[in-house]
Amino acid sequence: MAAPFTLRAAALHTPAPDTLEHWPDALIAVDASGSIQSVQPYNGQTPDNLLTLPPGHILLPGLIDLHIHAPQWPQLGTALDLPLEQWLQDHTFPLEARYADSDFAAEVYGAMVPALLANGTTTALYFGSIHLPATQILAETCLRHGQRALVGRVAMDHPELCPPEYRDASAAQAEADTRSLIKAIRALPGNESALVRPVITPRFIPACTDDLLHRLGKLAAETGCHVQTHASESDWEHEHVLDRCGCSDTEALGGFGLLTRRSVLAHGNLLGDDDLALIRETGAAVAHCPLSNAYFAGAVFPLRRALAHGVRVGLGTDIAGGAHPSMLDSARMAITASRMLETGVDPALPAGRRGRPGARIDATTALWLATAAGGAALDLPIGQFRPGYQFDAIAISPGSNLTLPPGEAPARLLERIIHTASRANVARVWVAGREVA
Amino acid sequence: MAAPFTLRAAALHTPAPDTLEHWPDALIAVDASGSIQSVQPYNGQTPDNLLTLPPGHILLPGLIDLHIHAPQWPQLGTALDLPLEQWLQDHTFPLEARYADSDFAAEVYGAMVPALLANGTTTALYFGSIHLPATQILAETCLRHGQRALVGRVAMDHPELCPPEYRDASAAQAEADTRSLIKAIRALPGNESALVRPVITPRFIPACTDDLLHRLGKLAAETGCHVQTHASESDWEHEHVLDRCGCSDTEALGGFGLLTRRSVLAHGNLLGDDDLALIRETGAAVAHCPLSNAYFAGAVFPLRRALAHGVRVGLGTDIAGGAHPSMLDSARMAITASRMLETGVDPALPAGRRGRPGARIDATTALWLATAAGGAALDLPIGQFRPGYQFDAIAISPGSNLTLPPGEAPARLLERIIHTASRANVARVWVAGREVA
Repeated sequence: MAAPFTLRAAALHTPAPDTLEHWPDALIAVDASGSIQSVQPYNGQTPDNLLTLPPGHILLPGLIDLHIHAPQWPQLGTALDLPLEQWLQDHTFPLEARYADSDFAAEVYGAMVPALLANGTTTALYFGSIHLPATQILAETCLRHGQRALVGRVAMDHPELCPPEYRDASAAQAEADTRSLIKAIRALPGNESALVRPVITPRFIPACTDDLLHRLGKLAAETGCHVQTHASESDWEHEHVLDRCGCSDTEALGGFGLLTRRSVLAHGNLLGDDDLALIRETGAAVAHCPLSNAYFAGAVFPLRRALAHGVRVGLGTDIAGGAHPSMLDSARMAITASRMLETGVDPALPAGRRGRPGARIDATTALWLATAAGGAALDLPIGQFRPGYQFDAIAISPGSNLTLPPGEAPARLLERIIHTASRANVARVWVAGREVA
Repeated sequence: MAAPFTLRAAALHTPAPDTLEHWPDALIAVDASGSIQSVQPYNGQTPDNLLTLPPGHILLPGLIDLHIHAPQWPQLGTALDLPLEQWLQDHTFPLEARYADSDFAAEVYGAMVPALLANGTTTALYFGSIHLPATQILAETCLRHGQRALVGRVAMDHPELCPPEYRDASAAQAEADTRSLIKAIRALPGNESALVRPVITPRFIPACTDDLLHRLGKLAAETGCHVQTHASESDWEHEHVLDRCGCSDTEALGGFGLLTRRSVLAHGNLLGDDDLALIRETGAAVAHCPLSNAYFAGAVFPLRRALAHGVRVGLGTDIAGGAHPSMLDSARMAITASRMLETGVDPALPAGRRGRPGARIDATTALWLATAAGGAALDLPIGQFRPGYQFDAIAISPGSNLTLPPGEAPARLLERIIHTASRANVARVWVAGREVA
């Protein structure tokens, strides 16, 4: 059923980090543009175009993946035993270089986007490869399948870190290709509502010359585009930038004009207090990627500390540094990692000196990160069931690995969903009022 | 197809912690008793009763769950925010008490056992509730569905820790009920091959009087049964035993006669060197439960250290302290937790002081833990494709979240399976040569 419609369903959402709102029986009216008109308890009346979810299903806001490398999809789950720099050079860059072949791009992206939608990812902030045609194909694929997406052609021109066979020919060329992508995506037929948006995407400071970073910062100011990059992910990367720039990633990015209200910095594990203050001041956001951090960062992102600083934080899979396409897995690992940071991990230390008290989050905060907080980080009206917001939603159905007992407290139902649901439990998926999986 | 048969399939197994054996095209001959007669490369001939897996499928040994609380199945994924002792008193004990109702037991176990088989768990070492009838129902359910199982009626008589409405009336009664269960399971019609076995199951020292522990130790010597309990899981539990017994869990269990070649100690996060030496000496084993440890233990089990001591270790889900029914999730978390122990978690510490170098394991070791090591821990011929071993196996099929590219190195294929496979990829399941899911 295409919008306009009214959906009757049990629903829950998390408009704030510690706030869970639950409707045991809601009516959500969606207009023809996919925008939510009203959310109210079922009132016994039958509106036109009524769609009713089966009993036992629970409607959640669609999941928002704030950090995913589309071209790395084929290496999902492999080579996680390597250090970041070797993983990049020996596996990731050679794979990404293959997207010079547009047929390969069409094949991979044509499989990936429906798979992500089926996992419940209604919005994704994508890193592409350096290739303009392949990245346009990614944008077109998202639009065709109805996934809300922000798509960036990755820019990387530094001759020291980037291999000759996989880097931008020059800073000027990288800027020109980025401009072309912005123009192409904004002009895509069928994209009048800006379901798919371009993103300025310097890979990370080590992979970019100062010239390129300056150019992209100016381009961000000129176009108002979103910006994404990596920042202070691992000790190696953090030290590399300190050595080269004489300051942290965040300070350097600010100097290049890359910290804006629409910037998303992936990881941020090693952000200092000054960094967090600067991020808050500029309105930028952090994409917390707990799955990949366990393998490549060597530390858990101090999420509670970032939130206490007033920094906006969302959640990312970091495919393929993270091995799971499901944002439910990322949400679960965000909780697990926060617990491990809180208690510590080394039993050889006494309990009192093992961890960092107060670090934990719960399922409510985890869903908030994966929905409302992701929407806020992107500065888009998504991630909540609220009038004026887009109707991006998923219906969770129970199954043999997930029971949703009637009458259980909403916070416990949500905990079950976050901890045990998988793709098999994502029964229906809508983006902008359109059913897409 | 019932055994005898010969299966033609790509297969891999892990006979040792760092050894992966791969057959791109194997013939595995299984006799009428479900025992493997031979494993050899395909030789171009067509034996009788040939069963061929589709191309792209990979056969693995069946997964062995060394620690699972069957009655906790209904609370999978909930209340993980509580400390262990509160989780037990407020949620777990009240739930387990409900198994006084045999109809409830039949309903839950009748849903759980097929779900576990569908997830690929071909052998499970079960804690039941204190109820003899419900625990017999669990054993019968496993037998009926063809799951290899070791089933224990949990014994817990300590009036301080155990609530009045959920504890054994006396040590003598607990011993008598344990004897009854042993006799009943050994006499089950259809259980002549001992597919289902009884297990002596003191919950943990805090829940048992010395009298009960002594009685159960004697019973273990008398019957030769397997033994299972918890040991040195959390700081609270570890300290509790030190205070009460004046020694560690392990030393105390040894004194009660509960450390045998067929004993499995769950968790063991806080085991000291003396404990590990004693466990090795007695031939007991540890069930590592990385999923629940992140929530209830406050530390990561130092797996590499235990292996260096020569201690046998397998892997458990610890349902419902662990929220995932799939042993693939436990295997994945064993890797992830080992990486977090190795690097540490707190970014406020310098990298050199953050973690414990050398703690990591890889996918090969993780599969070994979930298969061959589990079989060795149980002292049963399972977990490997080797003549004389039982044919317990699962076929993994690729899907949109799991690609298995032809020609990729076996270690990388296994890494993909461990990191991204879920129940949907468990295409077929055999126990003792019988297809069961």
